[in-house]
Amino acid sequence: MRIAVINEASAADMNANILAALEGQGHDIFNVGMTKCGAQPELLYIQTGLMTAILLNIERVDFVVGGCGTGQGYLNSAMQYPGVFCGLILDPLDAWLFTQINGGNCTSLALNKGYGWAGDVNLRFIFDRIFSVERGCGYPAHRREPQQAAIKTLETVSGLTHRPFDEIIAALPDDVLLPAVEYPGTLELIDIQAIEDPALVVAFAKRLSSLD
Amino acid sequence: MRIAVINEASAADMNANILAALEGQGHDIFNVGMTKCGAQPELLYIQTGLMTAILLNIERVDFVVGGCGTGQGYLNSAMQYPGVFCGLILDPLDAWLFTQINGGNCTSLALNKGYGWAGDVNLRFIFDRIFSVERGCGYPAHRREPQQAAIKTLETVSGLTHRPFDEIIAALPDDVLLPAVEYPGTLELIDIQAIEDPALVVAFAKRLSSLD
Amino acid sequence: MRIAVINEASAADMNANILAALEGQGHDIFNVGMTKCGAQPELLYIQTGLMTAILLNIERVDFVVGGCGTGQGYLNSAMQYPGVFCGLILDPLDAWLFTQINGGNCTSLALNKGYGWAGDVNLRFIFDRIFSVERGCGYPAHRREPQQAAIKTLETVSGLTHRPFDEIIAALPDDVLLPAVEYPGTLELIDIQAIEDPALVVAFAKRLSSLD
Amino acid sequence: MRIAVINEASAADMNANILAALEGQGHDIFNVGMTKCGAQPELLYIQTGLMTAILLNIERVDFVVGGCGTGQGYLNSAMQYPGVFCGLILDPLDAWLFTQINGGNCTSLALNKGYGWAGDVNLRFIFDRIFSVERGCGYPAHRREPQQAAIKTLETVSGLTHRPFDEIIAALPDDVLLPAVEYPGTLELIDIQAIEDPALVVAFAKRLSSLD
Repeated sequence: MRIAVINEASAADMNANILAALEGQGHDIFNVGMTKCGAQPELLYIQTGLMTAILLNIERVDFVVGGCGTGQGYLNSAMQYPGVFCGLILDPLDAWLFTQINGGNCTSLALNKGYGWAGDVNLRFIFDRIFSVERGCGYPAHRREPQQAAIKTLETVSGLTHRPFDEIIAALPDDVLLPAVEYPGTLELIDIQAIEDPALVVAFAKRLSSLD
Repeated sequence: MRIAVINEASAADMNANILAALEGQGHDIFNVGMTKCGAQPELLYIQTGLMTAILLNIERVDFVVGGCGTGQGYLNSAMQYPGVFCGLILDPLDAWLFTQINGGNCTSLALNKGYGWAGDVNLRFIFDRIFSVERGCGYPAHRREPQQAAIKTLETVSGLTHRPFDEIIAALPDDVLLPAVEYPGTLELIDIQAIEDPALVVAFAKRLSSLD
Repeated sequence: MRIAVINEASAADMNANILAALEGQGHDIFNVGMTKCGAQPELLYIQTGLMTAILLNIERVDFVVGGCGTGQGYLNSAMQYPGVFCGLILDPLDAWLFTQINGGNCTSLALNKGYGWAGDVNLRFIFDRIFSVERGCGYPAHRREPQQAAIKTLETVSGLTHRPFDEIIAALPDDVLLPAVEYPGTLELIDIQAIEDPALVVAFAKRLSSLD
Repeated sequence: MRIAVINEASAADMNANILAALEGQGHDIFNVGMTKCGAQPELLYIQTGLMTAILLNIERVDFVVGGCGTGQGYLNSAMQYPGVFCGLILDPLDAWLFTQINGGNCTSLALNKGYGWAGDVNLRFIFDRIFSVERGCGYPAHRREPQQAAIKTLETVSGLTHRPFDEIIAALPDDVLLPAVEYPGTLELIDIQAIEDPALVVAFAKRLSSLD
C-alpha cells in the first residue's frame, strides 16, 4: 500500500515515531509533512488536511496517516474535502474497528494529548491492526452488508456535497493552498502533469503560475 | 444554547442517558433522532449526519450531539456537509480541549465501543466540560491567536469546498434525504417556510413534493 | 502456561469472552470462578482475590486473570496477599508494558466500566500482548537492570510484610474463606494433599473440617 | 483532608502539575517525594510505596497521591502493606467510581504512559472528582450496602494477612527502609515520638539508630 505520512507543526517531533512504527510491513511510505517541531516552513493542520485531500484525490497514495495535538483539528481539516474518510484512532481497537466498519482512507492520530511514554509502541500496535484486516469488509459478520452499503452511500454523498476538486483548487485562498503545495517535496509528489483529470491539471497550473 | 440530540439505530438505547446527562444545564434540547433500538423507522448514520447538517445550516440549533457505535461513522457522515465541525469526544479532557481549541458545533460520541457501566456518568462529565468553557477561545493562552485564526480559516475552507446547501438538498439521493426529513418530528423542526435562504426553501419544497 | 480465570458476580457474563480470548495460544486454562451473572453460589471480589492468592501461592497456576466491574476491587483484594503482583490492564499497551516492566502474575480487567461493544476483541488484543513478551524482562532496554532488581525487591518485601500463608488461612474469617474454597471445583484444583508446605496442609485441613 | 503527594524518580517532573491540580480545594498538602527528575537522592517506587504505607498507618495523612510511569509499579509497591487501598486512576470516571465504590485511601497515577499534553488538566479533573464525592458511600444506590460491607471486610482481611506494622519496619531490608525514611523531610513528617503505637516507636528507633 502507498501510505503518506503528513505531520503538522504541533506534533512534528512524533514524525520519526510514526515512520518507525510503519516500518517492515512492506508499504511504500511517503513522508510528506514536517519532520521536526520548529523547522521552517511550518505546516498547520489547515495545510496538512489539504495535502491529504490532494494526494488521495489524485490517487498518489492509498492511505494517509496524519494527526495533530489532539487529532481533532487535522481530522476536521482533512474532512472538508471530497473523498476523504478519516478516523480518529487512539488505540488498536479503534484501528481494527474503523478499518473494517468504516473502511476509511485516512487516520488522524492524537500526537500530544494522551501521547506519553511508549506512545511510539502504541503507534506500532495501531498500525498492526489497521493493516491486518480488510478495509471496509464490515464487522461483525452479520452487519457486513449494511456497513458496506453505508460506505458506498457515504462515497456518493461525498461526491454530491463537495465541489469538484478542480473548482476547490481554483477557489482556495492563497494562504491555504500555497504553503501546502509549495512545501518542499510536495509538488514533486503531486506531479501535476501526471494527474489524470485535465481540469485539475489546468486548475493547479493556474494557481501555481502565481508562484513564478 | 439550543442543542439537538440525534441518535441512530445502533446506539439508540443510549438516547435516554444523553438526555439525562444534558439536564439541568439550562439548554433547550431537541431530541430529534431515535430513542430506542429496534424502533421503526430506523435512522442510520447516513441520515443522522444529514439531519445534523440541516439543523446547523439553517440555524435551528447551535450544537448537535450525535454519535454511533464507535463514533466514527456519524462523524464521517456529518462532516460531509458544509459548516459542520465535529469532534470525537470520549472523555472530559477531549470535551474541554475540543471546545476551546477547535470550537466545533457538533460532537460524536462512541455509544457502544467503550461504553459500559457508568457510561451515563461519563456523558455527564463530558457535557459538563463542553459547556463550561468558551467555544473557540483557544488553549493554552499563548496559542489562542493562531487557533482562533485556524477556526476562521477552516470555516472559509468549508464554504469553498462544499456546494451550497440548496444544491446539496437538490442532489442527494432519495434514500439518503427522505428517511432523514421524513423522520417523525423532523419537518416540524426544520420548518421549511421559516428558512431564511430562499433557494434552500425552494430546494426543500421540490424534494418534498415527492412525498405527496 | 497454566492460567486461572476467576470471575466474580458483577462481571461473570464476560467469563465466556475471556475464555474465548485466551483460546488457541497453547495455555492450560482453569476456569475457576463464576461463568454467568446471577448463578448461585456467588463469588465477590473478596473471594476471587483470595482464590487468586491461594492458586498462585501453592503454584497450581502461573498466572491469574481476574477482574470486576472496574477492576479496582479485585485488584485491591488479590493484592492483600503475599506473592500476588497484579496489574490493572485496560488496553494492549498496558498489557505489554506491565508484563515486561512489572512482571506480575495477575491481571485485573475492567469488565463493566468501559467494557462495551467489541470488548471481547479488546481482551484478545490484551492477551496477545501479555503473552507475546517475556515476563519481567524490563523495558526499555536501558532500564532493564533496575526494573529487574525492583521486581526482586518487591518479592522480598511481599514476603516480609505478609504473614506466612498458613497463618493467613488459619486467620481468615469463615465468610471470607469458606465461600472461596467451597466454590464448586475449587477444592479439587487446590488438592490440599498435594500442597508442598506441610503447615499449609494442616491449616487448610483444620479450616475445612468445619465444612463437615 | 491531609493529602501526601509522593513522586518517584521516573515521573518526578510531574510533581509540580500534581500540586497545581490539588490547589484551591482547601486540603493540607504534604509534598513528600521527589520534585524533579534527576535530583538526588532518588526515590524508587519501592520507597514511595513504603512511605505511603507509613504515613497512612501512623495517620499522618488521610490520603496519598502517588504514581509512577504507568502507575502499576507504585500501586504494587504501596499495596504490599496493611491498610493501603489504592486505585489506578486514569480519568475522572475512574476517580469518581473508585472513591465511592472502593473508598480507597491512595491513588496511583500514570505519569508517563498516556500522560501527554494537557495531562495537567486531566489531573485537575481527576482530583475534582475524587474529592467531590463521599469516600466509600457506594455506587449506584442499590449496591451501597454490599459495597460498604466489602470495604469493611477488605480492611479486616488486610489486618489479618499482613504482619503488624512494627514487625514490618523491623524486618525490611536497609536498602528498602533507609532511603525512604532518610529522604529529606520524611523523618520530620513521621515524627516518631508522636506515633501512638509504642511498639512501632521502638521499631523505628531501632532501625534509625543505624543511621547514626
